[in-house]
Amino acid sequence: MRLRLLLCWICAFVLLANDCAFAQSRAVRAVGSYWRSHESEIVDELVEFLKLPNVAADIPSMRRNAEALLEMMAGRGIEARLLETAGPPYVFGELRVPAATRTILFYAHYDGQPVDPSRWVGHDPFTPVLRDAPLEAGGRIIDFPTHEKYDPDWRLYARSAADDKSPIVAMLVALDALRAGSVDPTANLKFLFEGDEEAGSPNLGALVREHRELLMADLVVAADGPRDPSGRPTLYFGARGIVSAEVTVYGPLRPLHSGHYGNWAPNPAMRLAQLLATMKDPETGRIRVDGFYDDVVPLTDFEVQAIAEAPNDDLEQMQTFAIAAPESDGSRLLLLNQPSLNVRGLRSGWVGSEARTIVPDRAIASIDLRLVKAIDPGEQVRRLIAHIERQGYHVVTDEPDPDTCRRYPRLARVVTSDGYPAFRTSMDLPVSRALIAAVETHTGQSPVKLPTLGGSVPLYQFTDVLRVPTVGIPIVNHDNNQHSPNENLRMGHLWSGIEILASAMLIR
Amino acid sequence: MRLRLLLCWICAFVLLANDCAFAQSRAVRAVGSYWRSHESEIVDELVEFLKLPNVAADIPSMRRNAEALLEMMAGRGIEARLLETAGPPYVFGELRVPAATRTILFYAHYDGQPVDPSRWVGHDPFTPVLRDAPLEAGGRIIDFPTHEKYDPDWRLYARSAADDKSPIVAMLVALDALRAGSVDPTANLKFLFEGDEEAGSPNLGALVREHRELLMADLVVAADGPRDPSGRPTLYFGARGIVSAEVTVYGPLRPLHSGHYGNWAPNPAMRLAQLLATMKDPETGRIRVDGFYDDVVPLTDFEVQAIAEAPNDDLEQMQTFAIAAPESDGSRLLLLNQPSLNVRGLRSGWVGSEARTIVPDRAIASIDLRLVKAIDPGEQVRRLIAHIERQGYHVVTDEPDPDTCRRYPRLARVVTSDGYPAFRTSMDLPVSRALIAAVETHTGQSPVKLPTLGGSVPLYQFTDVLRVPTVGIPIVNHDNNQHSPNENLRMGHLWSGIEILASAMLIR
Repeated sequence: MRLRLLLCWICAFVLLANDCAFAQSRAVRAVGSYWRSHESEIVDELVEFLKLPNVAADIPSMRRNAEALLEMMAGRGIEARLLETAGPPYVFGELRVPAATRTILFYAHYDGQPVDPSRWVGHDPFTPVLRDAPLEAGGRIIDFPTHEKYDPDWRLYARSAADDKSPIVAMLVALDALRAGSVDPTANLKFLFEGDEEAGSPNLGALVREHRELLMADLVVAADGPRDPSGRPTLYFGARGIVSAEVTVYGPLRPLHSGHYGNWAPNPAMRLAQLLATMKDPETGRIRVDGFYDDVVPLTDFEVQAIAEAPNDDLEQMQTFAIAAPESDGSRLLLLNQPSLNVRGLRSGWVGSEARTIVPDRAIASIDLRLVKAIDPGEQVRRLIAHIERQGYHVVTDEPDPDTCRRYPRLARVVTSDGYPAFRTSMDLPVSRALIAAVETHTGQSPVKLPTLGGSVPLYQFTDVLRVPTVGIPIVNHDNNQHSPNENLRMGHLWSGIEILASAMLIR
Repeated sequence: MRLRLLLCWICAFVLLANDCAFAQSRAVRAVGSYWRSHESEIVDELVEFLKLPNVAADIPSMRRNAEALLEMMAGRGIEARLLETAGPPYVFGELRVPAATRTILFYAHYDGQPVDPSRWVGHDPFTPVLRDAPLEAGGRIIDFPTHEKYDPDWRLYARSAADDKSPIVAMLVALDALRAGSVDPTANLKFLFEGDEEAGSPNLGALVREHRELLMADLVVAADGPRDPSGRPTLYFGARGIVSAEVTVYGPLRPLHSGHYGNWAPNPAMRLAQLLATMKDPETGRIRVDGFYDDVVPLTDFEVQAIAEAPNDDLEQMQTFAIAAPESDGSRLLLLNQPSLNVRGLRSGWVGSEARTIVPDRAIASIDLRLVKAIDPGEQVRRLIAHIERQGYHVVTDEPDPDTCRRYPRLARVVTSDGYPAFRTSMDLPVSRALIAAVETHTGQSPVKLPTLGGSVPLYQFTDVLRVPTVGIPIVNHDNNQHSPNENLRMGHLWSGIEILASAMLIR
């Protein structure tokens, strides 16, 4: 009987662990008390913020968001202002803390991905609703509670509920909560909220160069992206860069009848297939472009160990996505520290019921190259072009005229994007170790530590231009439908996210 | 002065040669006299016929076409009737000739390709118009002349103006013209006009089996397709068969973020490229599928010689279509006697401005296989599937469920069409040589003789099922926009086409 009771307690303990840490510091316990007694106010503030449409191209809407942020910051005694750029304004705020020895810049973004309201189920993307479970699990829309508690498994649905307005509210509430518990942050705090992140932060470089002194800090904490699926606090010390290349291979000037011309007129779809096939070893997945891995900086022992300690959900992901075997040897988290060459699109002629018996006039492959620390985007693209040339292709950048087509039996057009490099802050830096310790100590949970996030965010502007170590602290659930219709935030992740961000404010 | 006059005469003579043969037999000269004095009536009959919409799916319209044909034939004393099938009716007619020792079945089709009226310039596809030059050369719509002559370079624009109603009118007028000149055909004539050719003649096999005796002949003359670009009379003794295969290669169950999953989740676009690349030698263009060429029947010396004597316009075509070098060694006309593997379409993910940074969930290649004499469509497809399996793929025919995807690291779905085989009547047969001689003697021009037409027509029903030698005699201009908007017929080709078809009625 006693044993059964003990087991029950252990079960309850484990179940609670995801949402309420069990060995929290006094400071973060104070934060927990705060959010527990202010759930409705916190959600109200977030919901009002989510009601403001935030598609970056709509500048008047973006200004309304920025004004709302100024108010939200001013109400907390944060000295806030707009920093104007060619796009939507940045919102900057600063809070000086007496006796602070460090300065942390908290970064997040208030713009969201474009929306297609027709694909949102049951409501407009800018009319937030609460559901009693995820939509995919049959969650129904329920009223917002007024006095009762929020079930941690309820979900808040709206554009930017996860990406990236809730982290903004969470960091401001973290500050409220620390104050309510009479706990001072240990660092001066700066806040930078961007309005053009979803377009690849085209103005972040100019901003950082223009406001170098204003933005200067000892650490940048970027609150964006999803937390590890385990729900554990997650720190990412880098992210892959990206550059893209679109390769067009030419056949006859216009599509030709495959009967009258097939096996005489060169087929660009086959030529493109042959060209792409030279780029990757079909057995090992290793890219065969000369120099592709030359600049890769090996992980340190600490970083390799961090990956080994991180939850490895490869088998679960294989099950979920029906993958029989990964493309390469090694865990997914380890492979993210290698550059990639990904064919994201192919187009030539027609398929299915639209298929026509033609030799197509062209075939197109859209490729993205993910970059890791120290690989220059332009250099990686030049390696790809050199590889294409080594396969006998004459490479052009503009649409070739017929005379150019007549001259070169193998002709490829390669159009590249500017792209941007990866960033990777060393986990071994004192400030990195201090941050890891602060999160671990205050939340009572060992954080998942990733040297490199798979996705790309242009935070190299902080590491390479501002020269400040930068670490990402995502707080939202991994199944948030980021960038898609029916984006959502799990309530339990908001609460624990407040605690995680508070812990980062207590770095020693 | 005399020399200059002589040169002028030679020039005029050469210019005339394309439209009016210069060493015609008396019989075909009579045909020439006939059409020259009946141009308006001939065009009127064709125009009225072209006004009848003839998209095969529209059965009531097809019946109106068939009724019109019955009238056109009855008016000429041809005993005509409908032969019913599951689709539009066939129209069959017969004309017995006293003292004839042979029977020729003239085949053509009265259905046309579907139309998109929005892409026809200046008129509806079923409202024929006359232009003073090709549309591409700035040809303007002109009134149909009432008493004046038709310029041979004028063009008649309408659906089926070339494919394939004008050959039907031409063969009926050829008969009128022979009679007007008191010349008897040398063979009994049968006529078979199909209403479902553009859909691949799905009912021709059943018809041929059901009406074997009725259709029996010594020779089938199929009046379809374009004449050689030189304008010379053209005889094709075969056509390639066709079968198609759509290959789908699978990646993750749904598209995945190329940052978080790229170089871990298998990329189906790259896999498909690697698979397709194994199918063709990039240097020689030779297909690397085992057994692909096993059943090819070599051309006879006479057939090889016929190709050597045919106009070789490869360099001109390369110039026109901006091709720097053909895919394989050998002339285009020679290569048409080899089977082909043509990638007619590729689809995976997105390209261009729609590109998304994903690992696609699937990649599709639509392939057509052109067949030559003696290659079985089903067998050729089995060879392709065996090749895919040899590359390590598990091949399925239906959309695989997730469990199947989880089981096979390389999984391909192959969906094949039924297709049909090639046909090739030997040029060395007595009846073939007799036809060649008749066309040469009566038109005064050496015909272009092709063992195999590049395109596919299911005339194997005549050669393999009815077991009657079959030869194609196309009459229309090669630049007729067949199957496309703005289909047209060059008037000069109609006139000389009447003479060519008349010559086939005079076979000895």
